[in-house]
Amino acid sequence: MTTLPDVMTAAVLGPAGVIHARELPVPELGSEDVLVQVRRASLCGTDLKIRARKFFKGDGPPVDTFVPGHEYAGVVAAIGSAVDEFAVGDRVVTEAHRGCMRCSNCLHGKYTDCLNYGKQHKGHRTQGMTVNGGFAEYARNHVSTLHRLPDSLGFDAGVILTTVGTVMHAFDVLNDLVVGARVAVIGPGPIGLLAVQVAKQLGAESVALIGTRESRLKLGHTFGADLVLNARDGDVVSRVREMGDGHGVDIVMECSGAPSAVDDALLMCKRAGRVVLVGFFEHPVTANLNEAVMNGINLYSVRGEGSGSLARAVSLASQGRLETETLVTHHFPLEEVSEAFDTYAERRGDAIKVMLDISEDTPGHPSGS
Amino acid sequence: MTTLPDVMTAAVLGPAGVIHARELPVPELGSEDVLVQVRRASLCGTDLKIRARKFFKGDGPPVDTFVPGHEYAGVVAAIGSAVDEFAVGDRVVTEAHRGCMRCSNCLHGKYTDCLNYGKQHKGHRTQGMTVNGGFAEYARNHVSTLHRLPDSLGFDAGVILTTVGTVMHAFDVLNDLVVGARVAVIGPGPIGLLAVQVAKQLGAESVALIGTRESRLKLGHTFGADLVLNARDGDVVSRVREMGDGHGVDIVMECSGAPSAVDDALLMCKRAGRVVLVGFFEHPVTANLNEAVMNGINLYSVRGEGSGSLARAVSLASQGRLETETLVTHHFPLEEVSEAFDTYAERRGDAIKVMLDISEDTPGHPSGS
Amino acid sequence: MTTLPDVMTAAVLGPAGVIHARELPVPELGSEDVLVQVRRASLCGTDLKIRARKFFKGDGPPVDTFVPGHEYAGVVAAIGSAVDEFAVGDRVVTEAHRGCMRCSNCLHGKYTDCLNYGKQHKGHRTQGMTVNGGFAEYARNHVSTLHRLPDSLGFDAGVILTTVGTVMHAFDVLNDLVVGARVAVIGPGPIGLLAVQVAKQLGAESVALIGTRESRLKLGHTFGADLVLNARDGDVVSRVREMGDGHGVDIVMECSGAPSAVDDALLMCKRAGRVVLVGFFEHPVTANLNEAVMNGINLYSVRGEGSGSLARAVSLASQGRLETETLVTHHFPLEEVSEAFDTYAERRGDAIKVMLDISEDTPGHPSGS
Amino acid sequence: MTTLPDVMTAAVLGPAGVIHARELPVPELGSEDVLVQVRRASLCGTDLKIRARKFFKGDGPPVDTFVPGHEYAGVVAAIGSAVDEFAVGDRVVTEAHRGCMRCSNCLHGKYTDCLNYGKQHKGHRTQGMTVNGGFAEYARNHVSTLHRLPDSLGFDAGVILTTVGTVMHAFDVLNDLVVGARVAVIGPGPIGLLAVQVAKQLGAESVALIGTRESRLKLGHTFGADLVLNARDGDVVSRVREMGDGHGVDIVMECSGAPSAVDDALLMCKRAGRVVLVGFFEHPVTANLNEAVMNGINLYSVRGEGSGSLARAVSLASQGRLETETLVTHHFPLEEVSEAFDTYAERRGDAIKVMLDISEDTPGHPSGS
Repeated sequence: MTTLPDVMTAAVLGPAGVIHARELPVPELGSEDVLVQVRRASLCGTDLKIRARKFFKGDGPPVDTFVPGHEYAGVVAAIGSAVDEFAVGDRVVTEAHRGCMRCSNCLHGKYTDCLNYGKQHKGHRTQGMTVNGGFAEYARNHVSTLHRLPDSLGFDAGVILTTVGTVMHAFDVLNDLVVGARVAVIGPGPIGLLAVQVAKQLGAESVALIGTRESRLKLGHTFGADLVLNARDGDVVSRVREMGDGHGVDIVMECSGAPSAVDDALLMCKRAGRVVLVGFFEHPVTANLNEAVMNGINLYSVRGEGSGSLARAVSLASQGRLETETLVTHHFPLEEVSEAFDTYAERRGDAIKVMLDISEDTPGHPSGS
Repeated sequence: MTTLPDVMTAAVLGPAGVIHARELPVPELGSEDVLVQVRRASLCGTDLKIRARKFFKGDGPPVDTFVPGHEYAGVVAAIGSAVDEFAVGDRVVTEAHRGCMRCSNCLHGKYTDCLNYGKQHKGHRTQGMTVNGGFAEYARNHVSTLHRLPDSLGFDAGVILTTVGTVMHAFDVLNDLVVGARVAVIGPGPIGLLAVQVAKQLGAESVALIGTRESRLKLGHTFGADLVLNARDGDVVSRVREMGDGHGVDIVMECSGAPSAVDDALLMCKRAGRVVLVGFFEHPVTANLNEAVMNGINLYSVRGEGSGSLARAVSLASQGRLETETLVTHHFPLEEVSEAFDTYAERRGDAIKVMLDISEDTPGHPSGS
Repeated sequence: MTTLPDVMTAAVLGPAGVIHARELPVPELGSEDVLVQVRRASLCGTDLKIRARKFFKGDGPPVDTFVPGHEYAGVVAAIGSAVDEFAVGDRVVTEAHRGCMRCSNCLHGKYTDCLNYGKQHKGHRTQGMTVNGGFAEYARNHVSTLHRLPDSLGFDAGVILTTVGTVMHAFDVLNDLVVGARVAVIGPGPIGLLAVQVAKQLGAESVALIGTRESRLKLGHTFGADLVLNARDGDVVSRVREMGDGHGVDIVMECSGAPSAVDDALLMCKRAGRVVLVGFFEHPVTANLNEAVMNGINLYSVRGEGSGSLARAVSLASQGRLETETLVTHHFPLEEVSEAFDTYAERRGDAIKVMLDISEDTPGHPSGS
Repeated sequence: MTTLPDVMTAAVLGPAGVIHARELPVPELGSEDVLVQVRRASLCGTDLKIRARKFFKGDGPPVDTFVPGHEYAGVVAAIGSAVDEFAVGDRVVTEAHRGCMRCSNCLHGKYTDCLNYGKQHKGHRTQGMTVNGGFAEYARNHVSTLHRLPDSLGFDAGVILTTVGTVMHAFDVLNDLVVGARVAVIGPGPIGLLAVQVAKQLGAESVALIGTRESRLKLGHTFGADLVLNARDGDVVSRVREMGDGHGVDIVMECSGAPSAVDDALLMCKRAGRVVLVGFFEHPVTANLNEAVMNGINLYSVRGEGSGSLARAVSLASQGRLETETLVTHHFPLEEVSEAFDTYAERRGDAIKVMLDISEDTPGHPSGS
């Protein structure tokens, strides 16, 4: 049995625009909690809003107290008294959301849409958003947010699986098999690129990927997209509709957040088809929603990786059927967290996923690969 | 056995803006068709677009050949050789859509979203839109578009049931019970007013109705709306959210087609709630769809009265649980069809549903009540 | 603020076959718990199995320590530190199941099927089955198991609503509207009789009730059953099929647990119809399941009142649309719990629901009506 | 353009137990029909019941007039006047069911459960069961029963896809993704062996196959089953439950029709899991259905390959992701149809799928591969 340290290094949010490493106490555990020694953590667009302090409704947390980070993987370092699902030393991936598990949404399985969002005293937590997260040596997670990482998968892959979880959730809300469907994916960011892979693995007949940056589209092609379209090259809608026998495709995954994407998605979609809104929109969107009404198209949305989606992502990856490592373009030590944020924000070096390497295997620590 | 006449009076579409009565041959039947002697037919917003010839993609049908009308009820006057579901003399209500029944949407039960829309040679028909409809003494209907009208219901009620069918379809797409739900209905037109009634009958905990015209809102109140809000009276969204315990309502039925309605609907809706788009939008809609993404809200749409919804409407009405006759504000003989259109278009006399009285019971005709 | 007593009277399970009242400490609350001063509690078939100690896998709990009772209503007497949904004095109804809220079933909203069933240290509880229940002056309930009882409803009605919750759940699993459906209910016990009422209120076109005891069937008729059939009077299946136009009915609710009921249910059901198994079967059932396979019939099951079903039941009752009091045939004070069990077990006086009257309004106690 | 012959060779049903080849007129087409020049057709268990004349409710069709066969593939030889989806020379696979497309089941997309089953004058047909099928040089198919066979797939594979269609339908009725699920398949016949493959392709975490014949189980192992169990080797249920973390599996596909299979399936299934009944049962089944009731398990059934399942099967095969040819163990010319039936019925040479080789490519005929 190893002894846990009292303090740890953590990245904390300073004034707007500032993130830096400092020392904080190692989190204490409740009876259903697990302490995760974080090995890798990645940055996502929400982290940029957090750094800018635009994410919070009010002022946000006091300066230098809050630890962001909701995409991470690591090793179990300690467990609460009511936990027997995991043991110290287990390699784990994490999901961000723990619901209050008592509101009507949580009781219906919709815990990422908890009605007590942000109310910690009622048990709700979103790692790295409403409670401290994973940009630290140790993180406290509710046991329900952890999934075992198979030995065949490294920690980088594990971190990427949190994003795959969102993609899975986006397919999950359709309550349907994907096999045989025509799918269009708008936006070749990490989510879109993984959506291409997942759609193909689930048996999609054909997948189109639409974007603007050639390097990303090229990656989409290697990930299996049957049709790769640069939105700057003219009539993207017509070409996607052709892929769907002139009727449009069955499923459109909107992963770009671009202002014109909803209009495009509706036009690409066949009658009675489905559009899933995965990307966050910065601004109000103008769209001809009459296209939905006239054609019986439904628009679904997903937030986070609920409904067992992370478990599904882990399963698919453990079958060797996901290419995740290509998406990891940069690694930084935790102390260079500010540099990591800048790299990601400015897409330096065509950054896709920027990873913080946190704890290393050291003697006397629980080991992992 | 009565002898059918060779010719009939029908309202036909002239040049843009013109509709008038003339003589046409009585329709001939295919083996699965039924000839309906139309007793009552009502006007809907789509009929106004048809009169303006704005409904069609191209020029539309030749002048004075096309019979609009998709909301009607009557008596079976003749049946095709393969029909045994109905007999001459049966009182019937009709739905507008018959799919091709061979495309993938029709084979999945989504016949109002038929991929062969408008292709008559493949069997698709939308009464009064792609084939001749019910503003005539006789109409040809595929047997699958008819439902028996119980003796307890008059023809006026029967016609209104086609609109109730759309309302039922809007609840049907949610794949859920309504009992106990909080529901907001935006737009107190015929569809919205009927949505209030249906929601209450299905056991909604509370129903809010939002509109601008006091006379309509008053009617909504008599139809059972628990909360009636004039959108001009300030913060409608907050008051609807209060009705939903501060979290918003479970279901929003958007029946107005108003440009701001989608934004309002999303803000009225609780996390993981559902918005159904029933109204047609005249113009592109600007909405903060990020409200949907952040809150896991899905937007459904419906077109027409598919999926057995008309049968459900007839059943509920036959149980004496719908107040339909109040909605019928005007009656005109078929010959005054142009006057009827003007009355409806200009909402003369606070017109809600304007009815054409067509065939009467006459000796030698199949009788009805 | 009232002072809570330290001890209370409770009915406890003795050796097999014995139940009697004794003094026990008032339960202590966790932070998410509510202490309910029980006003009324009713007996159900499971309580008989518990008294016989046939309900438990092993020996069951030690003699004279365990309090049965999972159908009860009362008044909030105290709340845990994290509870703000209720206040002392609130009138409440209860549901039996609290899941662990961390297994994959609970995370999907299926908490009545918790994979940690019976594991209290993981948070699972079933009132009166795996933890102490409501046959006592006070009961400890997790906040998620409580629903506010509207002023218009008495405590007897409140208790019956726990059974209505199961009925609602049985309709809920069908993911569909009920309006317009033909429904057959097998078994005129409390669940079946309430299923008749709920089906009618949700808009069923027609409801058949099948049983053997005339007094119960008569009650079903007053509750709105359109067709009431005594299974001893010959060909029940044919008559139910006739009610469904010769094709059978859309939904069969099996509430009898009778050995022949599954065969009957399949034969009553139309192609692609649905059978819901609500009753518990004492013995293995022999049924021609090929009727299901050949006709595309699905068999659903429900256990308990999950998925917000109790809230739906409360809502419908608060609309004045359920007749519950007729089902309460007997009242006993808590001290006569053994007599109450005998009355229920032997159906003395045609007992339907047998009620324990527990706490009364007394000065210094939170009041209710 | 080739000229069609007037007569053809067909296998016809004689007295009970007799099937033989004779000459029949080539079928005439309706406007929505397609004439398929059959290349390959396979035998299924239903064909054995048809040969024994046990399939029909009454006497069955007159001797020597009826052509069985519902699993076949071929080349389009002629098209009806309203068909433009296919052209002469197209390679096609077929499904068995064409619904009336006017009953409430067909209108809801459940055409394999048509309420007008067997009523040809209303448009219903089941190939080789209620109308002449594919054990002939030419077969008449409604256009909606055909799917294009990709060039990469041979006719043997095409025929097997009709069985894959049933497997797809069995997954389809669950309205869910399969990825990450634990699946047990009972019965290693053609359906079960294909279910193993489909489950793995859709991303199942693990698949168990249970049977009694070693040769079939071995095949299941090569098709990807993670756990292969001989039901004669003791406690199969426990070992399947272990595969599901001790809780049981998420999905059980019952493909054996064995009398004990339903009991086993329920015990293998986790709480809130799903059992799909795919196999036909010869006799009434005795099962402890209380296991379903106590554990919230639903039992689904499927008949035939509805809901676009054949299209999904074709898509998955065209992606090179199904191994179908191994299942084809025998080939016979049409003239030896009786020998083919005996081989299949008696499982001579470990017969799995027995194929009739019908038309060959000949000069002057439409060509295929």
